[in-house]
Amino acid sequence: MDKRNSALPLILLSEQFARLPGIGLKSAERLAYHVMNMPESEVKAFADALLNAKRTVHCCDICQNFTEDELCPICSDPRRDKATICVVETPKDIAAFERTKEYGGVYHVLHGLISPIDGVTPDKLRIKELLKRIDGSVGEVIMATNPTVEGEATAMYISKLLKPLDVKVTRLAFGLPIGGMLEYADEITLYKALANRNEI
Amino acid sequence: MDKRNSALPLILLSEQFARLPGIGLKSAERLAYHVMNMPESEVKAFADALLNAKRTVHCCDICQNFTEDELCPICSDPRRDKATICVVETPKDIAAFERTKEYGGVYHVLHGLISPIDGVTPDKLRIKELLKRIDGSVGEVIMATNPTVEGEATAMYISKLLKPLDVKVTRLAFGLPIGGMLEYADEITLYKALANRNEI
Repeated sequence: MDKRNSALPLILLSEQFARLPGIGLKSAERLAYHVMNMPESEVKAFADALLNAKRTVHCCDICQNFTEDELCPICSDPRRDKATICVVETPKDIAAFERTKEYGGVYHVLHGLISPIDGVTPDKLRIKELLKRIDGSVGEVIMATNPTVEGEATAMYISKLLKPLDVKVTRLAFGLPIGGMLEYADEITLYKALANRNEI
Repeated sequence: MDKRNSALPLILLSEQFARLPGIGLKSAERLAYHVMNMPESEVKAFADALLNAKRTVHCCDICQNFTEDELCPICSDPRRDKATICVVETPKDIAAFERTKEYGGVYHVLHGLISPIDGVTPDKLRIKELLKRIDGSVGEVIMATNPTVEGEATAMYISKLLKPLDVKVTRLAFGLPIGGMLEYADEITLYKALANRNEI
């Protein structure tokens, strides 16, 4: 935003929007102008939602998912199978698994993946909290990180830590996506689909 | 965001983001999660910037551009030629003209274009404020709305109101953009370029 011809608070707001991921300078400017056209009550509601989310939401003591209470709704649900832990990168991944309506176990959110190039070393993830959960009652840990370099590396790293704890460690199956076409599948997906073939 | 597995304040924040223009549900969710990872001081700065912009910025008494003071920097600059008024749709358009460094007059921001289909009737724009500025001292009003249906209609509507006030009303020139290629120009642009041709 042109500093000479615009009001300073508007420039500052625009800079705040531009700090958010995926919002460029032009969009940030557009959003700041949009805020100027919103009723003051709505702007207040937006500001309150920001502060409120940051102040009242924290990580579940057990699984590290975001929650307002001490435990998240999944960890505090007696119907969930506490013997199976699905390890995911972000709280958003939990929503994806819950949509399948097929998973009855609990989760563990790492809040990131190991990526030394971005300065994310294992101690920055919630790995200690996962290890603490592994007692005699846990039968299986499913490594459900994304099939990327960082996702694979993180799954391997954690599974090595889990092995001595006498717990079964599994990894999600990779292969052709349902509804996908063979001719559009990349080589690695097709290789995985072939290598992991099942008898029918 | 899945209401059963996420904290309510996070859902509310995500809904606030989704109300902004150009931000869909998925992006809104991503932004809400991003806020959770920001330090509280930064979230506070963001919330303050929102409230501060809305509370301290208002429209310039003369040209309706956004400003913190009674008059905007352009209207209060004695070097600007007050006899020439460039009429634009939004404050952002002023920044575009200022970047040319060629315009020495002042502006008038309509804050919209006439668009009955969206419920924007002429009384919702800052047209009265423009007419009030037309006294003997104003020599020319440049209609600088976009070359769209609404922009043209608004320019025509205002120029009809200005005609009886004995002021010269002009419209931006339309033609080939500099650096543009003839073969890629649309028919209307090419027609305008032909119709408005100049002797060299």
